[in-house]
Amino acid sequence: MNLSDLAPEYIRAISPYQPGKPISELAREMGMDERTIIKLASNENPLGTSPLALEAMTRALNEVALYPDGSGFELKAALSKRYGVTSSQIVLGNGSNDVLELAARVFLKPGASAVYSQHAFAVYPLVTQAVGASGIAVRAIKYGHDLDAMLDAVTPETRIVFIANPNNPTGTLLAASALLRFLERVSSDVLVVLDEAYNEYLPGTIKADSIAWLKRFPNLLITRTFSKAYGMAGIRVGFGLAHPDVSGLMNRVRQPFNVNSVALAGAVAALEDVEFVKRTYALNQAGMLQITTGLRQLGIEYIPSYGNFLSFRLSQHDVRAINESLLRQGVIVRPIGIYEMPEHLRVTVGLESENQKFLKSLEIAIGESA
Amino acid sequence: MNLSDLAPEYIRAISPYQPGKPISELAREMGMDERTIIKLASNENPLGTSPLALEAMTRALNEVALYPDGSGFELKAALSKRYGVTSSQIVLGNGSNDVLELAARVFLKPGASAVYSQHAFAVYPLVTQAVGASGIAVRAIKYGHDLDAMLDAVTPETRIVFIANPNNPTGTLLAASALLRFLERVSSDVLVVLDEAYNEYLPGTIKADSIAWLKRFPNLLITRTFSKAYGMAGIRVGFGLAHPDVSGLMNRVRQPFNVNSVALAGAVAALEDVEFVKRTYALNQAGMLQITTGLRQLGIEYIPSYGNFLSFRLSQHDVRAINESLLRQGVIVRPIGIYEMPEHLRVTVGLESENQKFLKSLEIAIGESA
Repeated sequence: MNLSDLAPEYIRAISPYQPGKPISELAREMGMDERTIIKLASNENPLGTSPLALEAMTRALNEVALYPDGSGFELKAALSKRYGVTSSQIVLGNGSNDVLELAARVFLKPGASAVYSQHAFAVYPLVTQAVGASGIAVRAIKYGHDLDAMLDAVTPETRIVFIANPNNPTGTLLAASALLRFLERVSSDVLVVLDEAYNEYLPGTIKADSIAWLKRFPNLLITRTFSKAYGMAGIRVGFGLAHPDVSGLMNRVRQPFNVNSVALAGAVAALEDVEFVKRTYALNQAGMLQITTGLRQLGIEYIPSYGNFLSFRLSQHDVRAINESLLRQGVIVRPIGIYEMPEHLRVTVGLESENQKFLKSLEIAIGESA
Repeated sequence: MNLSDLAPEYIRAISPYQPGKPISELAREMGMDERTIIKLASNENPLGTSPLALEAMTRALNEVALYPDGSGFELKAALSKRYGVTSSQIVLGNGSNDVLELAARVFLKPGASAVYSQHAFAVYPLVTQAVGASGIAVRAIKYGHDLDAMLDAVTPETRIVFIANPNNPTGTLLAASALLRFLERVSSDVLVVLDEAYNEYLPGTIKADSIAWLKRFPNLLITRTFSKAYGMAGIRVGFGLAHPDVSGLMNRVRQPFNVNSVALAGAVAALEDVEFVKRTYALNQAGMLQITTGLRQLGIEYIPSYGNFLSFRLSQHDVRAINESLLRQGVIVRPIGIYEMPEHLRVTVGLESENQKFLKSLEIAIGESA
């Protein structure tokens, strides 16, 4: 009997998250020049980072010998103002991943369960398993969440339901009315985690006013991130909004300095950069049209997406061979076999030139495999 | 019954870590100019940040729209080279706090226990409680760890022993021979977490060659940080070294992007900055002499310290009043009542001018309270 055998079985059974392949890794493996590689694998912002955030982060480096403000005073003040919540309703995270994990650590434990959808974001089962709770994956309908079935799947032991809206990697969206009906029907002793990482990519007309729901539902936790529309994936900052009792508990478990000081400063500035988010949104709309048009021309089926990415199906081809051809051509997309979608690849919407290179490379890959 | 009542009792009972008061917070509270305030409360590096690290971090901001390399390939390669370990032995953390928490999440659970010393770093009981395990605090000897008593305190349920060397906030140091004897005697199914956050402040002559012990003891985890001697507290990066089975389990639970890309780049460069660490060490030695000399002149008792900080005792005075006077004079030190040391304050060794201002302000504070 050695030490590692004494770690709980649920920890030893975890398969770690497989991130998108970094450009540097592909360059090392293939002996390629990093500059010839495009990465459309991690739903990053092709416009880079909000210039206002970048300026604030550069300034913040001057004080990086000091610990971050563990209370996140200024960022919480900025978020309060923007979203009309109190500071006590906010949990800051080292990316929204951290917020999702905190929710699991506070509300789940061995014997408890979490409900999520088939094809939903991989971090939900991971954080559930890491605390020894059971995950209940509910069969999807047309790749989207089946809220009625998810409601039926809730048991007396269920403490969390994870809902991704839009969902990654499928890009599917639930209507505000459907979400609201779910919140009205689900037991108030179940935390509903509404993951809105891709919220900024939604047209205003179809965006749910989810934050207003916090007043009615003390069991609602909304998570958002600065990784996507603000272009800050590398620096790690996200947040959760909830009833103060919920955020209060999560803040007890939170590492005191979980968000670094550069990210804190960047996020405050990013919230002011309305212009950058507008450009990001517009570029994404145009790029999505470009990619869906191109895929249709190639006769490739795809799932209509509300995010900054899109999953397409290669049922007639060997997905692994197509992906390897794309890699050889310097195009990194994401295989999503672990999402029970072995015939799909997910591509992030990039710059016009990147989308074009992707489409062209895909055409070549398909030609090779024919 | 509401949702928060359903969180485990051990979570609801947590008192969150109280960080040192940020300069901005004192300025807000007292209506003071931030530039007139000195913070000697969080064991930060008074020389700022390693210039090589700062340069690398500034460069890394250009790519901050991309996710960090979740595998930490380059930093692990640099650490491997520096410390003669394999990459598979390394766990990177969002500060060493993160590494301590990962150890607790992997090896502790309700029913298990962790052993640590009275007056030891506050994060050990926090991470223990957050996973519902029991903490066993062992009475200190002259403010230092009593390793014999700690060994006796280990029960069949004990999975972790935390040892801080030097310890914060007491600054006490255990001899290498004593540590080695402890490792030889403790059961191999107990993880010994040797927290060496202040390692770089030790004279080479008394530094334990702890990393060499990893070969003999598969139940040893050594933690280190870039927050102190490298001046990178704000950006959050630390690491653990252990047997690959131990680090492998911790890496399963680790958030895939727990260390941000700016910190990763900065840490690689910092490891090259031998010159900066030398200057830091020399300044600390001189400052420690300056402060201990000054305290002796004031007739104030202190605990001889091997770190970049020192705890001194004000048994004849109202500690709270002294601290408030220091704050009014723009000097932030750390009250350590939560460490069962209500008569002590902890001061970080600063620049010569800061140490002088601290000593002068302390003299005034004592005069006021007399």
